[in-house]
Amino acid sequence: MNKYMRMAINEARKGIRNGHGGPFGAVIVKDGVVVGKGHNQVVKNNDPTCHGEIMAIHKACKNLGTFDLSGCELYTTGEPCPMCMSAILWANIDMVYYGCNILDTEDIGFRDKKFYEMQQPGAREKLVHELDRKACLKLYKEYKEITDKVNY
Amino acid sequence: MNKYMRMAINEARKGIRNGHGGPFGAVIVKDGVVVGKGHNQVVKNNDPTCHGEIMAIHKACKNLGTFDLSGCELYTTGEPCPMCMSAILWANIDMVYYGCNILDTEDIGFRDKKFYEMQQPGAREKLVHELDRKACLKLYKEYKEITDKVNY
Repeated sequence: MNKYMRMAINEARKGIRNGHGGPFGAVIVKDGVVVGKGHNQVVKNNDPTCHGEIMAIHKACKNLGTFDLSGCELYTTGEPCPMCMSAILWANIDMVYYGCNILDTEDIGFRDKKFYEMQQPGAREKLVHELDRKACLKLYKEYKEITDKVNY
Repeated sequence: MNKYMRMAINEARKGIRNGHGGPFGAVIVKDGVVVGKGHNQVVKNNDPTCHGEIMAIHKACKNLGTFDLSGCELYTTGEPCPMCMSAILWANIDMVYYGCNILDTEDIGFRDKKFYEMQQPGAREKLVHELDRKACLKLYKEYKEITDKVNY
């Protein structure tokens, strides 16, 4: 089997045997070198954002000193949830390899599939509401007019 | 205007004036008490996951000592991207109020709208690939059989 996926599985296994969270490990590779690894630590850290992919992105960014992971591949034991998928997109990661799919993940009790459905247009109407747009547009305008900022 | 949205704007403004990242601030409220605040720190932290909502969720979870933010409301200057939207769902936050919408955010140069399109079925085929599912299913099975774990 793929050596990076084996590393991701080992990361995940370490996590579940220590009660850190779900069976999700991730490894980020650039030019054949591992630049970041992580596993789910939602339970350990009491933080719902501490998925394996997010932890691996944190570490890779720290190691490489940039928020831009262009040229990197990510290996993960489970198909990324929409949070991790979007984090992967923000990070400009080039390629993602996952082991188990979204239905496998639903089978062991996680809500990833439901959350993908919540990303569809119109699905968030009861949860998400507009408020004070005018005041926020002033803030956006101030940002737009800053000329020496770092875009991403 | 709403007092929590004003706080979110102030958070965001502090961030952009210090070059921390985009004009995005967030405030989490439970029973009328602010339990977490944050602003975008992608540039400051060199980390693409450091959006305002994620930073506020980190802080609220730390303050409350739990990964479950049921009963909380979140106020944010911009409509959450799919990463933050899914983080909000994982956190079980009850209600979200945003100022500027996804098109306003596109107007100032951010890719949120594009990333929502990437969440649609079939949109990720070039980026995301299955690999070594069998080995990962063994890992999932091991997790499923742990009887004393914390589910989330």
